[in-house]
Amino acid sequence: MNKVNVGILGATGAVGEEMLNVLAERNFPVKNLKLLASAKSAGKNINWNGKDYTVEEVTEDSFEDIDILLVAVGSGVSRKFSPIAASKGVIVVDNSSAFRLNDDVPLVVPEVNPDDVLKHNGIIANPNCSTIIALTAINELNKYSKIKRMIVSTYQAVSGAGVKGLEELENQVAALGAGKEVEIDTFQYQIAYNLIPHIGPFYDNGYSEEEMKMQNEGRKILHSPELNVNCTCVRVPVFRSHSESITLETESEISVEKAMELLKDADGVKLVDDLENNQYPMPLDSSDQDLIYVGRIRKDISAENSLVLWCCGDQVRKGAATNAVQIAQLVVEKNLVK
Amino acid sequence: MNKVNVGILGATGAVGEEMLNVLAERNFPVKNLKLLASAKSAGKNINWNGKDYTVEEVTEDSFEDIDILLVAVGSGVSRKFSPIAASKGVIVVDNSSAFRLNDDVPLVVPEVNPDDVLKHNGIIANPNCSTIIALTAINELNKYSKIKRMIVSTYQAVSGAGVKGLEELENQVAALGAGKEVEIDTFQYQIAYNLIPHIGPFYDNGYSEEEMKMQNEGRKILHSPELNVNCTCVRVPVFRSHSESITLETESEISVEKAMELLKDADGVKLVDDLENNQYPMPLDSSDQDLIYVGRIRKDISAENSLVLWCCGDQVRKGAATNAVQIAQLVVEKNLVK
Repeated sequence: MNKVNVGILGATGAVGEEMLNVLAERNFPVKNLKLLASAKSAGKNINWNGKDYTVEEVTEDSFEDIDILLVAVGSGVSRKFSPIAASKGVIVVDNSSAFRLNDDVPLVVPEVNPDDVLKHNGIIANPNCSTIIALTAINELNKYSKIKRMIVSTYQAVSGAGVKGLEELENQVAALGAGKEVEIDTFQYQIAYNLIPHIGPFYDNGYSEEEMKMQNEGRKILHSPELNVNCTCVRVPVFRSHSESITLETESEISVEKAMELLKDADGVKLVDDLENNQYPMPLDSSDQDLIYVGRIRKDISAENSLVLWCCGDQVRKGAATNAVQIAQLVVEKNLVK
Repeated sequence: MNKVNVGILGATGAVGEEMLNVLAERNFPVKNLKLLASAKSAGKNINWNGKDYTVEEVTEDSFEDIDILLVAVGSGVSRKFSPIAASKGVIVVDNSSAFRLNDDVPLVVPEVNPDDVLKHNGIIANPNCSTIIALTAINELNKYSKIKRMIVSTYQAVSGAGVKGLEELENQVAALGAGKEVEIDTFQYQIAYNLIPHIGPFYDNGYSEEEMKMQNEGRKILHSPELNVNCTCVRVPVFRSHSESITLETESEISVEKAMELLKDADGVKLVDDLENNQYPMPLDSSDQDLIYVGRIRKDISAENSLVLWCCGDQVRKGAATNAVQIAQLVVEKNLVK
C-alpha cells in the first residue's frame, strides 16, 4: 500500500492514544505522523513505533501536509477544524457526532457498509460506540433477513467518558474503600456500585441523545430508513467494554442454528456461545481487543421472527479508535488519497 | 391486630436478617418469635426489638408453637421443611422457588394479587426478586390496559446471591486495589468491574432459570396465562438494588401522561421521572427502603401501544424480605391464622 501522511487531532485523549496503538499494530502505511491537540496538551512527547513525536497545538494551518486526519475530539472542536482540514484536501475520519447525520458525510462501519466511503466529500464519520458494537454484531443477521425492529438495553463502560470517566470510577472506589467522601465530576452521580440511566442530554421524547443514535445512525449505516429502534442506555461501573442486550425482529425467521452459523463466520465478530461450558460474552474478556463478542443467542419466546442476543465490545477500540483506523485503511485501499 | 407466633427459618442469612428488620419497622404483631437455622448457625444470639433470641437448629419438631413461618433458605431445605410445617397447621411464607408454580400454592405480590392468599393450603410463595420488582412497577399499567408482551433486561445486584455475593464483590474490589489475585467462589467469573449474563442454570431453550421466572411467575401473579416475556438477566457489580429496563406492549395505548398519573399513585411505587432535573431511578437511591422506583417512562418509538420504562428496587427488601412480611401481614389481616 502507498504510504500516507497521517494526522491525529486529539492525540492525547483515551481514543487518540488507542488510535496510535491500532495504527502500529496494523502496520498502517504511515509516511509522516503529526500529532495535534489543544494548547493545553501541546508540547507533550509521545513515542510511537520507536520514534518521539511532539504534540502540536492545532490551528487552521495544521493540515497542509496531512493526507488522512483522524479526529478524536469533542463535536465542538471537530465542527471547527474538520471542515477546514477537508477544504485543504485532507480526508477526515471524525469520531465525534458532529457530522454523522449529514447527507454528504458517509457514516461507516467497515464490516457493514465499506463502500460508503467512496461517497465522501472530505469527511467520513465514525459512528457512536454503542451503534458500532450493535451493528457489527447484527450485520450478518440483517443481511440474511432484514431487521425491522430492535429493542436494545445497553450496559456502557466508563471509558465512554474518556480518561476522566476511567479515573472517576477508580477514584470513587478508592475513596469508598478508605471511608472517604466520593467526588462526582464527570458523571451525574456516583458511578461506583451504581447505574446511571442517562448518557447525553435528554430530548423532548424522553430518550437521551445516546439512545436516539442507535436508530438514527443505524438507519443510515444499514441503508434501512424504516428500521425502528427503542434503546435504553445505562452507564455501569465497568472500565472498557460496552455490553448490549438486543432483541431483533426480522422480516422472516432466522433459526438459532442459522444465526450461530452466520455469526461464526461474521467479520469482526467472535461467537462466544457455549452455555454448557459457561461461555458467553463478558466485558472483561472482550476488553483490549477488536472483536465484538456475541452470544446468548436464543429464540425470542415472546414473538415470532425475533431473536435475542447479548454482545460486548471494547468501547475505546472497536467502538472508536479501531473503527476509525479501519475506515482510514479503506481510504488507502480504495486509493482515495489524491 | 391479633398477635401471632412467628418463626423465621434461615434467620441468619441476608434475607432472614432483613425480615427481622422489617418485622420490627412495621410493628408486626409478634407474640413469640422463634429463630431457626441449620446446625451451623444454631446457638447464635440475635437481638430483636431489645430482646435476645438464640437461633435453634431446625428439626421436624420445630414448628409446634408457630402460627406463621417465614422461610428464607434455599429451595432444597424449603422443600424438606415447609410441607412439614404446613402439615402442622403453620402458614408458611416461602421465599424459595420450591413451590412457586404449584397449582395449590398462591404466589403473591401484595400490591398486585393480595386476595390470592385466601386460596392457600398451608404454603404461600414469595416470588423471585426480579419478578416482584417488575410486577410492582407495571401493576397499575397492566390494570389500565392488559400487558401482552414484555421485553426485560435486568441489571441484578450481588445481594441476589446472599451475604456471600456481597462479600465477593467487596473482596474482589479490595484485592484488585491491592494488586492481588481475585478469588472467585460465588459467581461464575469475576464480578468486580464486570457483567455476567448468567443467573441460575440454563435451560435447553437458551434461557436461564432466572430469565424464565419472569414469564412463568408473571403469568401466575397477573392471572395472565397468555402473557409473553422475553427476559435477559445480567449480574452487575452493584450491592443491593436490582434495576430493570422494560418494554411493555399493551392491548390499547397508554399515553406517557396517563402512565405517569397511574404510577404516581401506585401502591409500592415511587415515581422518579423528572429529566430536566436529572431525576430517574438508580440502584444507590433505591437501596435500603421498600419502594420500587420507576422512571424514564416514554413511548416506544419502535412500535404501537408500547411503553418503555426503567425501575430499581432493593433486592433484599421488596425483592424478598419485605414482600414476605407483607404477605404475612395479609395473613393476619385476613384472619387466616386459626
